[in-house]
Amino acid sequence: MPTNQQILLDNRPTGEAATGNFKLVSSETPALQEGQVLVRHHFLSLDPYMRGRMNDSKSYTAPQPLGEVMGAGTVGEVAESRSPQFKPGDQVVGMGGWQHYSVVNAGEPGALRKVDTTHVPLSYYLGAVGMPGVTAWYGLVKVIEPKAGETMVVSAATGAVGSAFGVLAKSRGCRAVGIAGGPEKCRYAVDELGFDACIDYKLHPDAASLSKALKAACPDGIDGYFENVGGMVLDAVLLRMNAFGRIAVCGMIAGYDGQPLPLTYPALILTNRLKVQGFIVSEHMGIWPEALKELGTLVASGKLRPRETIAQGLESAPEAFLGLLKGKNFGKQLVKLI
Amino acid sequence: MPTNQQILLDNRPTGEAATGNFKLVSSETPALQEGQVLVRHHFLSLDPYMRGRMNDSKSYTAPQPLGEVMGAGTVGEVAESRSPQFKPGDQVVGMGGWQHYSVVNAGEPGALRKVDTTHVPLSYYLGAVGMPGVTAWYGLVKVIEPKAGETMVVSAATGAVGSAFGVLAKSRGCRAVGIAGGPEKCRYAVDELGFDACIDYKLHPDAASLSKALKAACPDGIDGYFENVGGMVLDAVLLRMNAFGRIAVCGMIAGYDGQPLPLTYPALILTNRLKVQGFIVSEHMGIWPEALKELGTLVASGKLRPRETIAQGLESAPEAFLGLLKGKNFGKQLVKLI
Repeated sequence: MPTNQQILLDNRPTGEAATGNFKLVSSETPALQEGQVLVRHHFLSLDPYMRGRMNDSKSYTAPQPLGEVMGAGTVGEVAESRSPQFKPGDQVVGMGGWQHYSVVNAGEPGALRKVDTTHVPLSYYLGAVGMPGVTAWYGLVKVIEPKAGETMVVSAATGAVGSAFGVLAKSRGCRAVGIAGGPEKCRYAVDELGFDACIDYKLHPDAASLSKALKAACPDGIDGYFENVGGMVLDAVLLRMNAFGRIAVCGMIAGYDGQPLPLTYPALILTNRLKVQGFIVSEHMGIWPEALKELGTLVASGKLRPRETIAQGLESAPEAFLGLLKGKNFGKQLVKLI
Repeated sequence: MPTNQQILLDNRPTGEAATGNFKLVSSETPALQEGQVLVRHHFLSLDPYMRGRMNDSKSYTAPQPLGEVMGAGTVGEVAESRSPQFKPGDQVVGMGGWQHYSVVNAGEPGALRKVDTTHVPLSYYLGAVGMPGVTAWYGLVKVIEPKAGETMVVSAATGAVGSAFGVLAKSRGCRAVGIAGGPEKCRYAVDELGFDACIDYKLHPDAASLSKALKAACPDGIDGYFENVGGMVLDAVLLRMNAFGRIAVCGMIAGYDGQPLPLTYPALILTNRLKVQGFIVSEHMGIWPEALKELGTLVASGKLRPRETIAQGLESAPEAFLGLLKGKNFGKQLVKLI
């Protein structure tokens, strides 16, 4: 069996995460048991939720155990198989973690899924046609329930989730407005992703200023908001929500380092009769096939052309991950392993 | 026509409301036009939402206009009628305002409704079998959607809304826990209203302390919360919500004087996948008949015995209203006019 390289969570961050929280180790991959498959990873996915798992606190997923391989979505190909369901060379998506190889019990439901790269590049199964895309789909379709003509806003608009959200909202006849950091991302959101407008939050020192920009970009107010960041951005959006607006809460990346991020005007939930709902896409596996089908079609037809930021080599994963938490990535953040 | 006495909103509060915001005047009641009815009010209802209307700010209802009679629900009897739908002596509920008499266009949908006082006292149509009762019903049944065995919590538990909420929750097989101010109210909530437990928030200096008391009173966590007050109480409850909990936001009385009341840990909405939804019962008129039927049956059968605090005379309305905002009332606050 090949020698594996792995990145473990070595210790938990106090405040900001740092490269010192991780440790690179080598290990032998164990021999396959009956029903198991050895997968060689081509890409691993870096996602904001991993920061939450680094804390040892109650959250929606169990904390990442210390001394174990960092969990992550992966795409790759089957290197060896002792399962009738898979053969060497099959392209697969799974949860292989921050390592080169993983041994998978192929019979476990959802553990490994074959994918077709005829019309969709392999890496997209970690982004637009994977968990982030389905996250955008669930928040828009099942939580926000948009109607044509309504205005939809998303923060982290050029990220893997945000870019899918924009295309999905446009395809339902909505006005789509993004919020992103910096002029380059905002230009890209409008020119390439098809957002009707995109606001650079870095130009706004406070919620009042950002709220004014939202008023200009959303002349009819905001009916649906997909929350990826929290903090000042949420405060600013709340001030512009229309009556009966819906907010899908998917992430609050701004608060992952531990400081509480208060919501300044919760009374707006009442006065505007808003629905604010948190969700985690992995708890709604039933909708994945429908969502993946629509997302795959949007990619194959060229309507959804998500951008990727690709770090090279397993050892680059910690730095790339920390950059993601600061918004340094542009589009879906991946690590290429092969 | 009889001489009327009315209380007008004379000027808007800056900060706390005060008696000086109101003005008592006398006026002649106008002669009835065809289709109109003159109603003599027996009781008028004082409700927290009126404080919001005293501000000149965007909210879910238009501000109370200056120089006009304060709006309010009223029960009384028809004194004169030029409508075939009503005859003198009919007992009716309407929105007559802070005055002795009102002239009503009887044909206007929802303007005036005949009520039967065989099994339900007239004043209850302003409380348990009126808008507050329906408010509790809508929040519980349509927003929270309780399941038997779940734990339901309500703030302002001995008020008109809270007391109905407790009985409705118990009748659905839930554990009902109240939050109220002072030992007398808490005893009453358990002994008379049937709550399983009631917490005196005045014993708790901060959200952490109140949250600890909630943990003891709700050993299986909180699945549904009906919010009447906001502020520290909401913070404390959020810390105890179970995954997939639902919060119906009906009032934030703690914030009515203008100071913002931040929500300290909005990220809990995400980590616990909560639904937080604001609503106003007057926007859901379709459910009123079903709700009133259940509430009337609960009252007639003795299961719902709401307490009332009755101020005597129109001139006592301002003081009684200011007391309501400070929690000085015990149960439904009314003003008796006759």
